[in-house]
Amino acid sequence: MRHNHYDEQTFFDQYAQMSRSQEGLSGAGEWWQLKPLLPSLEGKRVLDLGCGYGWHCKYAADQGAKEVLGLDLSEKMIAEARRRNAHPVITYQVGALEQYDYPEGRWDCVVSNLTLHYIADLEGIYRQIRRTLTPDGVFIFNIEHPVFTAGVGQDWAYGEDGKPLYWPVDDYFLPGERKTHFLGSEVIKQHHTLTQILMGLLDAGFALEAVVEARPSEEMVPLMPDELRRPMMFLVRARVK
Amino acid sequence: MRHNHYDEQTFFDQYAQMSRSQEGLSGAGEWWQLKPLLPSLEGKRVLDLGCGYGWHCKYAADQGAKEVLGLDLSEKMIAEARRRNAHPVITYQVGALEQYDYPEGRWDCVVSNLTLHYIADLEGIYRQIRRTLTPDGVFIFNIEHPVFTAGVGQDWAYGEDGKPLYWPVDDYFLPGERKTHFLGSEVIKQHHTLTQILMGLLDAGFALEAVVEARPSEEMVPLMPDELRRPMMFLVRARVK
Repeated sequence: MRHNHYDEQTFFDQYAQMSRSQEGLSGAGEWWQLKPLLPSLEGKRVLDLGCGYGWHCKYAADQGAKEVLGLDLSEKMIAEARRRNAHPVITYQVGALEQYDYPEGRWDCVVSNLTLHYIADLEGIYRQIRRTLTPDGVFIFNIEHPVFTAGVGQDWAYGEDGKPLYWPVDDYFLPGERKTHFLGSEVIKQHHTLTQILMGLLDAGFALEAVVEARPSEEMVPLMPDELRRPMMFLVRARVK
Repeated sequence: MRHNHYDEQTFFDQYAQMSRSQEGLSGAGEWWQLKPLLPSLEGKRVLDLGCGYGWHCKYAADQGAKEVLGLDLSEKMIAEARRRNAHPVITYQVGALEQYDYPEGRWDCVVSNLTLHYIADLEGIYRQIRRTLTPDGVFIFNIEHPVFTAGVGQDWAYGEDGKPLYWPVDDYFLPGERKTHFLGSEVIKQHHTLTQILMGLLDAGFALEAVVEARPSEEMVPLMPDELRRPMMFLVRARVK
């Protein structure tokens, strides 16, 4: 079983302080770009891989989805989702993405926000997702950007004045484990190249409908100017072909 | 008229020393990945945007293309193409990509190798290419990778021992002009984000068929290990939708 940082108390408590935890979708920097990628969810079946606090599940339910399954490896996260974002059509379930059974043609829409960069076998998961989607099904995800995951220590290089000099990239074509520090804990992520992220989808039988790098909205730029200096997240909408 | 480095004598002479100039396609590091992206060219009409010495035009002719047009801004390059890679079905023509008239439904295949990172209005060119392609036409290109064009000075950061420390990225979301040094000259390139490169294609009415980052082949890795440390080029096959 993969180690799950989100069940460490320190990490969990720190995560609870993030604006995406306190404010939900409106506090998530990428939501303004992710939301328009979602199809109409009215009457749809939605699977959320790595649902965390369940904000996207709740959004789907509020949009009229008829059934939503939120899956997350972390018991603490699932407990939090049940507490904060319960809804009659939503089921929250503790489990690893790699261990879910992905029944054939079961879901109209699969969503995964900031989870796939913890998955080593991206191609394997893609194939499973392809299989569990209905013939016209849509897969929308947000993964950490390869420029970010290939960042040296996933941090800036700093000048003597303590300010970010630039974003250092290395070992780009050596995908796999990256040990990083996030919210005071050591966190292991998986670096995937852009080729793996996109060709993997094409090879699994998806058509690419949108490929968007997350960046701050115009009103947020003055608050986080450094976020224009390197990409951090990568949003994709793919459809069963 | 855009300034054309390739017509400066110094730059031209230096370019002539590169293995891609001396050996043609087999001397181009990306050819082993670009070649499999090309469709059958037997009986096809092929347009090469930024044909340089004409290697790809000659390849298309040798594969049975019935008509090939090689376009390049540089008079010197076109003279060289006519000298080295003449063929009865090939026409070489001096001209800017932005000024070609892109007749509707005129070409079955458009190829562009290492030229689009000199183009400021990528979306505009995409629309023109879409228009000049036949209904099932294919557009294959190789553009410098956004990680490369957003590189600080498009060079490594070096350690005290003079070896590359890492590849520094900055101002990623500020696309446009980048002044760089290449083959002893100052060369102006255009940085485009990945979103611009790929969403631009989708928005122009293309389906993405392949998205591949160039990397050294297994036998070349020992000769150029640093090329695994950051991506330099980005290959795409797109088809009219």
